[in-house]
Amino acid sequence: MSAEPSSTPTPTTPTSSSPSAPRHGVWFVGARGSVATTAVAGCAAVAAGLHPATGMVTETADFASCGLPSLSSLVFGGHDTVDCPLPKRAEHLADGGVLPHGLPAAVHAELAAADREIRPGGPVPGDTDTVPARTDDEWIEVFAADIRDFVRRNDLAGAVVVNVASTEPAPADGALPPSSLYAAAALRAGCAYANFTPSTGLHHPALAGLAASSGVPYAGRDGKTGQTLLRSVLGPMFQQRALAVRAWSGTNLLGGGDGAALADPAAAAAKNAGKERVLADTLGAAPQGEVHIDDVPALGDWKTAWDHVAFDGFLGSRMILQTIWQGCDSALAAPLVLDLARLLVRAQEKGLAGPLGELGFYFKDPVGDGPSSLGEQYTELRRFAARLRDDAGDSEARR
Amino acid sequence: MSAEPSSTPTPTTPTSSSPSAPRHGVWFVGARGSVATTAVAGCAAVAAGLHPATGMVTETADFASCGLPSLSSLVFGGHDTVDCPLPKRAEHLADGGVLPHGLPAAVHAELAAADREIRPGGPVPGDTDTVPARTDDEWIEVFAADIRDFVRRNDLAGAVVVNVASTEPAPADGALPPSSLYAAAALRAGCAYANFTPSTGLHHPALAGLAASSGVPYAGRDGKTGQTLLRSVLGPMFQQRALAVRAWSGTNLLGGGDGAALADPAAAAAKNAGKERVLADTLGAAPQGEVHIDDVPALGDWKTAWDHVAFDGFLGSRMILQTIWQGCDSALAAPLVLDLARLLVRAQEKGLAGPLGELGFYFKDPVGDGPSSLGEQYTELRRFAARLRDDAGDSEARR
Amino acid sequence: MSAEPSSTPTPTTPTSSSPSAPRHGVWFVGARGSVATTAVAGCAAVAAGLHPATGMVTETADFASCGLPSLSSLVFGGHDTVDCPLPKRAEHLADGGVLPHGLPAAVHAELAAADREIRPGGPVPGDTDTVPARTDDEWIEVFAADIRDFVRRNDLAGAVVVNVASTEPAPADGALPPSSLYAAAALRAGCAYANFTPSTGLHHPALAGLAASSGVPYAGRDGKTGQTLLRSVLGPMFQQRALAVRAWSGTNLLGGGDGAALADPAAAAAKNAGKERVLADTLGAAPQGEVHIDDVPALGDWKTAWDHVAFDGFLGSRMILQTIWQGCDSALAAPLVLDLARLLVRAQEKGLAGPLGELGFYFKDPVGDGPSSLGEQYTELRRFAARLRDDAGDSEARR
Amino acid sequence: MSAEPSSTPTPTTPTSSSPSAPRHGVWFVGARGSVATTAVAGCAAVAAGLHPATGMVTETADFASCGLPSLSSLVFGGHDTVDCPLPKRAEHLADGGVLPHGLPAAVHAELAAADREIRPGGPVPGDTDTVPARTDDEWIEVFAADIRDFVRRNDLAGAVVVNVASTEPAPADGALPPSSLYAAAALRAGCAYANFTPSTGLHHPALAGLAASSGVPYAGRDGKTGQTLLRSVLGPMFQQRALAVRAWSGTNLLGGGDGAALADPAAAAAKNAGKERVLADTLGAAPQGEVHIDDVPALGDWKTAWDHVAFDGFLGSRMILQTIWQGCDSALAAPLVLDLARLLVRAQEKGLAGPLGELGFYFKDPVGDGPSSLGEQYTELRRFAARLRDDAGDSEARR
Repeated sequence: MSAEPSSTPTPTTPTSSSPSAPRHGVWFVGARGSVATTAVAGCAAVAAGLHPATGMVTETADFASCGLPSLSSLVFGGHDTVDCPLPKRAEHLADGGVLPHGLPAAVHAELAAADREIRPGGPVPGDTDTVPARTDDEWIEVFAADIRDFVRRNDLAGAVVVNVASTEPAPADGALPPSSLYAAAALRAGCAYANFTPSTGLHHPALAGLAASSGVPYAGRDGKTGQTLLRSVLGPMFQQRALAVRAWSGTNLLGGGDGAALADPAAAAAKNAGKERVLADTLGAAPQGEVHIDDVPALGDWKTAWDHVAFDGFLGSRMILQTIWQGCDSALAAPLVLDLARLLVRAQEKGLAGPLGELGFYFKDPVGDGPSSLGEQYTELRRFAARLRDDAGDSEARR
Repeated sequence: MSAEPSSTPTPTTPTSSSPSAPRHGVWFVGARGSVATTAVAGCAAVAAGLHPATGMVTETADFASCGLPSLSSLVFGGHDTVDCPLPKRAEHLADGGVLPHGLPAAVHAELAAADREIRPGGPVPGDTDTVPARTDDEWIEVFAADIRDFVRRNDLAGAVVVNVASTEPAPADGALPPSSLYAAAALRAGCAYANFTPSTGLHHPALAGLAASSGVPYAGRDGKTGQTLLRSVLGPMFQQRALAVRAWSGTNLLGGGDGAALADPAAAAAKNAGKERVLADTLGAAPQGEVHIDDVPALGDWKTAWDHVAFDGFLGSRMILQTIWQGCDSALAAPLVLDLARLLVRAQEKGLAGPLGELGFYFKDPVGDGPSSLGEQYTELRRFAARLRDDAGDSEARR
Repeated sequence: MSAEPSSTPTPTTPTSSSPSAPRHGVWFVGARGSVATTAVAGCAAVAAGLHPATGMVTETADFASCGLPSLSSLVFGGHDTVDCPLPKRAEHLADGGVLPHGLPAAVHAELAAADREIRPGGPVPGDTDTVPARTDDEWIEVFAADIRDFVRRNDLAGAVVVNVASTEPAPADGALPPSSLYAAAALRAGCAYANFTPSTGLHHPALAGLAASSGVPYAGRDGKTGQTLLRSVLGPMFQQRALAVRAWSGTNLLGGGDGAALADPAAAAAKNAGKERVLADTLGAAPQGEVHIDDVPALGDWKTAWDHVAFDGFLGSRMILQTIWQGCDSALAAPLVLDLARLLVRAQEKGLAGPLGELGFYFKDPVGDGPSSLGEQYTELRRFAARLRDDAGDSEARR
Repeated sequence: MSAEPSSTPTPTTPTSSSPSAPRHGVWFVGARGSVATTAVAGCAAVAAGLHPATGMVTETADFASCGLPSLSSLVFGGHDTVDCPLPKRAEHLADGGVLPHGLPAAVHAELAAADREIRPGGPVPGDTDTVPARTDDEWIEVFAADIRDFVRRNDLAGAVVVNVASTEPAPADGALPPSSLYAAAALRAGCAYANFTPSTGLHHPALAGLAASSGVPYAGRDGKTGQTLLRSVLGPMFQQRALAVRAWSGTNLLGGGDGAALADPAAAAAKNAGKERVLADTLGAAPQGEVHIDDVPALGDWKTAWDHVAFDGFLGSRMILQTIWQGCDSALAAPLVLDLARLLVRAQEKGLAGPLGELGFYFKDPVGDGPSSLGEQYTELRRFAARLRDDAGDSEARR
């Protein structure tokens, strides 16, 4: 790895693990997006000691001896339909304040390495240029082959696939949307899978059988990073205090790619369904109120979410809670995505298969059964971590 | 008592329980204050079916078969240093929007009955007119006698004492402040005790031995009704997500009696200590930031609390959460006070004694040990409820 | 008029002016709505000295000697398509906190008197029961006759017509919507006219000639009561300080009749057009951002408006202003409606005709030319008031 | 001027004016602070076309032909008690997001040039090391000599002095605080003076005579950049709409040097006095409510100001407006400081002397008489600009 000319401190210790240690692939659907770029750059930065692991739950004490792969053992690749090289993408993110200035230069080598492992995605909706047109199965096979090649080329112990692409519109008919083609490819390649987006992914009737028979663990759907994260702790608060929520309204302002994608009402509908599900689950019934997602390019990758909760107290007294969340979605998502990748690697290593309901902590619309309040989900997650330990016997019941 | 002419629906069923059922006393320190008045009026209204039991956790399903006393079995009395009759106080609260219009008339009989059971409190700081001046022990004896008379006069199965008086300044030296005199009187009269205020109460070194030997259960301190309630769910959220809270600042605006009392810096200091303790407990360390409590008479009994949380995400990204809580403290506190009274009655009936750490759900500064996140406190509370059942055996370990 | 039994203080002075003083009619389109009911009740209450004239600009010192009709000289009537009697409507508003408790009883006589002067409106969209169907001209004639009868029956010096009905959808084709039929009727009856709503009213090409030749003064459109009022002072602030507004986003939550009416996208579009016009006018160009209007029945007549303004400062620094407005639209609108009625009465008395651009202070979409910042509009309004004085000569140029 | 190695675009046109054009000195009290550093860097950047002149009112059309000195004709120097070189200070500001990354390098030459013109300030409160101790007059003379040397050394047409130092505590007795020593030095050196801070400056009884006889124009006090700017447009809005403001409460959170300085209650008192004056002036009376200023180091140079306004509408309806302002004080102040410097240069050139009440637009506590609403102040400012034109005759009355 050649030296990077840079005024930013570069790691003096090697960022790759020892030659004999196994390395694990993380294959991103949407590998050139903000989340993937932040995850690749951040993984390198944290592994090199340039930044603390803020936001990574798997770096806290409860996960220390669970056999999770080290950050430096992760190797990144993925699919994307756009061409912008990761180092350049990272510079854009630094200009927008998502990444620290100097970081893209400091981890240029790792970004360039990941960039070399990105393969073309598809099919692009509305694109009629791909000749000859592929059938769904052909797409799946191409994608699965890309992943298998990635594993072989890098001599990896295996790979997990995480969807971090922009939200796609809800499919209009029974057709498999792109996110489902990628998900099917993951299963076909024998990879654990997580869907961090509201897109369909494995949640398609045509994939139910495949998912059940694939023998790989999977998780999702729709990462819980901001407004819904808040709702997953505030909803239980109202319920536990026996306060009657009458209306819960919200508006999200965001620019960046996600803002533009979600300006499409069909895509927004998919996202909003997840937000409302969390409320209905934690409150027992869906309150009045709507959720808006506005594309505001001036905000770049920063998101503002305003929530207004009208609730009744004792004797019908009317009260209001409002919250304003100003965050950077990519910086919120990336550490959770790294968490998921590590947990999936280890789960597959331990022979777990099927829906991992214990990862509901991360999602708006979790697979499997599980509690809906964040606190209980956190308890579940720590219980799951304990099951991943080497000394956790086979006999342990799955909760 | 003659029927009240009123256009508000009055209960057609008797509000008192059957003659043979035991009745339980609830003795309020600060019996003419907003919280006590709301509790008395609300208890009658809910018992009569005029309003749902919004805000009363003990009316939810988990508490249905715990042997809690019915609302209609509760008989109210207490101490106060002011004279305004409860029915008139209730009218003031209705004018301020705390109680529904029409409610004071609808429950006039119950308010008047409670009013007849209120005895003079003391000592009033700065008051040199009480002649002859009483010693601490004389005050305690007078108060305890008032409570015993209340029980005897009303043929009660017993009584619990709950402090809902205005916050008193932190005592400057080792002297027993009024709240501690009342607390000692509760113990002397053999009554379970809860302190819903930040005042000293049982938290005084001179009372430690008495509390230990009294054989009664007790709980407290400082009810968690608004800003701190929020903090007890948001603090854990940040901690569970490994986000780094750098500063947590807050401002409270409130009028009413509490606003004036807390405009006294010494009283505010007592209250703020509780708020900051919750943050330090849930975050692991106290972040930067201050808390202000402003007396704004124009707001009456309504409180606005603004919180501003500056936190770091992945790679040091700076994010902000702000919350604005607009609530009525009396309406938030009263149902919890009724909860506590019922739980204490039943706990004493079951022979429990000493600090009830399992009631931490209700307090900023709980007695005993216990978790600091609201979710875990709620789990504790439900576990406690299970212990109160008639069929909960003696053999059950106290966790 | 018989005495009203009431515990609320009733006026001891007669609320009607002396027999010889002229009385003036105020004819409301939407006479049973929240705004009209509040205006009628409030006019009586202020005239009787029960409440100060908060919110009425025409009661401030600058308007003292302008010859405006006294509040007690105003006589109310109007059109509406619903039947609920005004006294009952007022009770509903008191239950919702819009009117003080006790006020409906205190001014029952005045409400009942106005109620007797309300005539059926129309045509109701989708209503095919009116037999035989009327032509536009027949509707206009019926309405004009109602107004003329009102003036004659009450021996009034004249009448002004103010539209305070719910927002109607923007007309799809060239047809005259109901609001325009009422406006045409006002002109035909020789009455000054103001449109406090975003509905079309006089802003219809087919009425342009009629408006020009009618010889009556008119004003409008779309009262500026909350979010847009704020925007009309904040927009100029940014512009005067040379700060670059990049995005201005907003969400309105409201229940009540207006919430339901504006849940219709077509009606909301009419309202939003006005809001955005104010921004474009004060900022020089329309910034990014959308405006949402949500129907939240739980909020009743209270409205919450959140605005988020992203602006650039020196050297491209990114800054944010957010505003949260919690108000009661009827209570904000009613005093302005009374202002407008009085100003129109006097303007017509002084022989003014045509669009009154000087009343832009009140409107999102003013008639005529004029400044768009509230401060300058206020200067214009006071200048207009000076022109209404008896000693203001004919020679004074109309600016 | 040597070329700066930099990847940031550097100006291709010379940033200094032609040799024959007069150059004007701007002498900052607090020349190494955030505001001064931002002003120096920003002046160079805008003059070089690197950034638009956002936030500079004197760059808008109304000021185009007023004879103001060009930005490139301004030469900077000043006093400060700290040593950090301006280029390094600018790097710190870029790290904190106040200046764009790359800007310090792009304008390094101009920063270094200004840095060479900074002289030691004093006296430092509590510093007893200066030997021998100077009398007030000696300090004034030293400061005045520094300014005269600056003008001579740089062959300037003159200089203006602007105080942008951290707020000093209100002086306890009649002693001249440092800000007044600097102000007196400005007068003694024959320089126009503006005080952008809440410190005493010329507002000291001992300087009244000197100010009157000095023959120089002066302005101040206490720049209106954020919360008070808002108040100066919202206060008039309530007053113009005859709405009754009952309470106006506010909290400011800020880090940076100003946060620490204002954590001193005496300094905060000086600042708050200005904020409250604006409310009292625009509303006619001071409402209930307090203002807090909290030092929150985690926020750096960014400030958050929350305001809560409780007001009454028609018939006593209770309404609330809340505002949240998130801005960078240095970026808000710097362009206004450049405005003031240019206006003072020109005013002195035009022979104006004494208090410039027409600059009230910029200040919380303006000198002279003038309106208190921002809109009217803006009108005054534009009128003042017209007076500065070359063709504005002597005969023009000063309003």
